[in-house]
Amino acid sequence: MAKDENFDEWYNEIVEKAGLCDKRYPIKGMNVWLPYGWKIMQNIDTIIRNEMEETGHQELYFPLLIPESFFKKEEEHIKGFSQEVFWVTHAGKNELEEKMLLRPTSETAMYPMFSLWIRSHADLPLKIFQIVNTFRYETKMTKAFIRVREIHFFEAHTAHESYEDAEAQVKEDIEIAKRFFKKLALPILFSRRPEWDKFAGAEYSIGIDVLMPSGRSLQVGSVHQYRQNFAKAFDIKYEGLDGKHHYCHQTTYGMSERVLGAVIGIHGDDRGIAIPSSIAPIKVVIVPIIFKGHEEEVMKECRDVEKELKSKEISSIVDDRDKTPGNKFYDWELKGVPIRIEIGPRDIQKGVVTIVARDGIKKEIDRNELDKIKEELEEFDERLYKKAEKFLKENIHRIKKMERKEGIVEIPWCGKEECGIKMEEELEMKSLGTPLEKEEINEKCPVCGEKAVTWLRLARSY
Amino acid sequence: MAKDENFDEWYNEIVEKAGLCDKRYPIKGMNVWLPYGWKIMQNIDTIIRNEMEETGHQELYFPLLIPESFFKKEEEHIKGFSQEVFWVTHAGKNELEEKMLLRPTSETAMYPMFSLWIRSHADLPLKIFQIVNTFRYETKMTKAFIRVREIHFFEAHTAHESYEDAEAQVKEDIEIAKRFFKKLALPILFSRRPEWDKFAGAEYSIGIDVLMPSGRSLQVGSVHQYRQNFAKAFDIKYEGLDGKHHYCHQTTYGMSERVLGAVIGIHGDDRGIAIPSSIAPIKVVIVPIIFKGHEEEVMKECRDVEKELKSKEISSIVDDRDKTPGNKFYDWELKGVPIRIEIGPRDIQKGVVTIVARDGIKKEIDRNELDKIKEELEEFDERLYKKAEKFLKENIHRIKKMERKEGIVEIPWCGKEECGIKMEEELEMKSLGTPLEKEEINEKCPVCGEKAVTWLRLARSY
Repeated sequence: MAKDENFDEWYNEIVEKAGLCDKRYPIKGMNVWLPYGWKIMQNIDTIIRNEMEETGHQELYFPLLIPESFFKKEEEHIKGFSQEVFWVTHAGKNELEEKMLLRPTSETAMYPMFSLWIRSHADLPLKIFQIVNTFRYETKMTKAFIRVREIHFFEAHTAHESYEDAEAQVKEDIEIAKRFFKKLALPILFSRRPEWDKFAGAEYSIGIDVLMPSGRSLQVGSVHQYRQNFAKAFDIKYEGLDGKHHYCHQTTYGMSERVLGAVIGIHGDDRGIAIPSSIAPIKVVIVPIIFKGHEEEVMKECRDVEKELKSKEISSIVDDRDKTPGNKFYDWELKGVPIRIEIGPRDIQKGVVTIVARDGIKKEIDRNELDKIKEELEEFDERLYKKAEKFLKENIHRIKKMERKEGIVEIPWCGKEECGIKMEEELEMKSLGTPLEKEEINEKCPVCGEKAVTWLRLARSY
Repeated sequence: MAKDENFDEWYNEIVEKAGLCDKRYPIKGMNVWLPYGWKIMQNIDTIIRNEMEETGHQELYFPLLIPESFFKKEEEHIKGFSQEVFWVTHAGKNELEEKMLLRPTSETAMYPMFSLWIRSHADLPLKIFQIVNTFRYETKMTKAFIRVREIHFFEAHTAHESYEDAEAQVKEDIEIAKRFFKKLALPILFSRRPEWDKFAGAEYSIGIDVLMPSGRSLQVGSVHQYRQNFAKAFDIKYEGLDGKHHYCHQTTYGMSERVLGAVIGIHGDDRGIAIPSSIAPIKVVIVPIIFKGHEEEVMKECRDVEKELKSKEISSIVDDRDKTPGNKFYDWELKGVPIRIEIGPRDIQKGVVTIVARDGIKKEIDRNELDKIKEELEEFDERLYKKAEKFLKENIHRIKKMERKEGIVEIPWCGKEECGIKMEEELEMKSLGTPLEKEEINEKCPVCGEKAVTWLRLARSY
C-alpha cells in the first residue's frame, strides 16, 4: 500500500485492514465500527470529556428526534440543513401527525429546553455538551470517518449574559482545541470562515482544519459565535441584574469522528496506521523472540514485563500467537501500536528489553527501568507531531498572484465576497477563511487590485 | 412526596426533582437526560462494560438505520416488532428508494455482517456487545426510564458452534446478570418466559424481573437462546472441523435504562432517591456545620477531608453554598448521595467526623480512619440490597388456587398454554414464566386439575 502514490486509495484500504471499520454494511455512508476502531474513538472521547469537565461543562443527552416545527424556527439554520436531513414519517403502520428529523446537529433540539432552563442571570453561563450520533444525507462520495451519513459527534453548547462573555467562551474553546489536537499529535489551523461559508445561523464561524497528505484540507472541528440569533428564534431570555429581560448570547463547539480520520491519514504510512499513545488501545505489544531451549525463559520474561507495565497503567499485551516474529511485527505495525518490545534470550542475558517505536526508532532499555517507556511513548507522540507540523508548514504557501499550488495558499484579500469567490473559482479551491491573528499587510488583492486587509486561505478540501 | 401512598405519582415526580431527566421535551416518551441522571447511567454502563470485558466480549457499534429488506428476513422477528418501529422514508427532498427503520434492537443490523465475519470454527465463539439508543413506538402510557420511545440500551450478541456452547453462554449471562444486579443492590428473579411471550425469533427467553414497590414487576433484562433461527434467516455458517458447513447457534443478552428506573423505584423513599455507592456520581457530600468564630477552621477541615477522600478515589464534594445545613441535607437526600459527612467544631475537637448514610444510619468515625468510609459505603449498598430482598421475598406468594395477591404469585401449572392464558385472564396478571431451577412439585393445575409440572409466576407488570 503506497500512501504517497495514491493517498485516497491507501486510506480507503487501511481503515479496513487495520480493523477500524467494516464498510460492507448495506447502507451507503453507514459503516460498522469494529472493536479496535471503536476503542480508539472512545479514547478520543475520553480526552474531550476530560477537557470539558475541567472547563466546567456538563454532559447530558438530548433525544435524537426533532419535531419539524422546532427545526424550522431559525430561518438560516433550516436553509443550511434542509437538503440533508433524514425524515421519520411513519411509526408502526401509522403516518405521524408531525414528521420528525434525525438530528443533523442539536441546536433545534436543545434550545427549546434552554428557554425553559434559563430564567435569570444566576443560571448563566450554561455550559453543556453531548457525545452522540448525528445524521446527514451526504450526496457526495462517502469516505470512512471523513464523509459519512451517521456521524459520531461531539457538540458543546453554551449560553451567556453578554456578547463579551460569549467571546470569552470562543477563546476558551480555541484553547481547548489546541490542547486536544496536540494530544492527538495533530497540528491545526484556525480560520475565520468567510461570510458565505459560515455555519447556518451563526454570526461567525471558526473552522479548525488539518492538512491531509493528499494536499487537501480537512475540517476537524468548528467553533461558532451565534450572538443572539438562536436566542431570538427560541426565546431564550434571562432576567438581568437590571430587572429586565435580555436574550442570551450563545456559542457552540463541535467535532466528529473526522478527528480519527485525520489521525489515520496524517500519521499512517505504507505499513499501516500509527496511533498516538494518548489514544492507543494497546500502547505496548510484547513479542517473544524464541530460540530453541529458551521458550519458557522468554515467555516468562514477557509475562513479567507485561505485568509490570500494566501495574504502571501502560496497556500492553504479549503476542503469544503461533506466528513468526516477522508476521507479528507486520500485524502490529498495521494496527499502529506505538511501541513494540522484543524480548529474546540475548536481551534477558544483557538485562535489557529492545523497544521499537512505530516510526522505527529502536532502543535498548534497562530491564529495571521500564518506567522509561512512558517517556518513550511521549517522545513518540512528539515525533508524530513534529513530522506532521513540518508537512503542514511546508505546504502553506503565501502567494501574491493567482497561482496553483499543492496544499494551502494564502492570498492577499480586499475582503470583498466577489473577489473571494473569484479566487475560489480560478484556483478551483475552497476558502478556509482568514487567520485569527491580526497582522499588518501591505499587499494588493490580486483580483480587484485594491488594498488587501487580510490573507485569505484557500485549499482543495474534503 | 409519599412513596407508599401513590408510588407511580411519587416516581414520576422524583425523576425530575432529583435532576435525572426533563420530561418537557416536545416528543412523547423522549426525555432529556440531565447531567446527574446521565452520569449515573454512564456509571451503570461502566459496570456492564467491565463485566463484558472480563468475559471476553468486544464492544463495537452498528449503524442505527436498518434497511427494510434486512428487517424482514426473520419472519417471527418482524411479526413481533413491525407495529412499533419508526420509519425513515425521506432524506432531504427525496423519497428513499428503500425505506429504513430505526433499530428497535440490532439482530437484523448485525447478522448480515456476522454472515460475512464468520467463516470457520476458528472464528467462534463470536462475542460482541454495544451500548446504543434504540427506538420503539410505544403506544401505552410512557414513564421515564421505564417505558420510553428512545431507549438507552445494552445488547450482547454471540455466535457459537453448537447448541451446547450457546447454552453455556446463556449460563454465563445469568452469572453476569447476578453480579451486575447485586452491584446495583437489586434482587432479581429469572423466569423462563412462556412460549406465548418469548422474544420474537427466539427458541426461548429468560426474563430478568424486579418487583417494584407498587407491587408490579418490571423486566430489567433478558437472555435469549436463538438456536439456529436467525442463523438460517441470515445465512450465518461456519466450516467445522469435519469440513462441512453448519449454521451457528446464537444468543443475546439485553438490558436498558429500565435498570435505572428500578434503582430509583426500589431504593428511593419519601425524601428522594438513594443511589448505591457503586454507581453514585458523588459518593460523599461534606456539609460544614458552621458556628460563629469557627468558620475558617471548619471550612479548612472540610477541604482537607475532601482532598483525602479524593486521594482514596472516593468521589466527594464540599457543599459550601450559602444555605442552612438543613437545606443542604434536604438537597442531597433528594439526590440520593450515599453518605453525608457533617463537620463542626465539636467534631474537630473530638478528632472525628460524623457520617450519616442515606438510609439514616449515623456514626462517628475517627478522623484518622477515613478509609473506613469505603466499608461504610459497601455496608450501605448491602443494606439497600437486604431491604429490597426482604420486600421481594415477602411479596412472592405460592398459592394453590386462583386468588388475587399483591406482588408475584406462583401457581402450580400443567404446562398447557390454554391454562396459563386462563390464569392471566382470571387474575388480570401477566405470566413471567417458570423458575429456572428444577423442583419437585406435587400439586394440581387449578385450571384443568391435571398434574402440575412446574410453577407459573404471574404478576401485574410494567
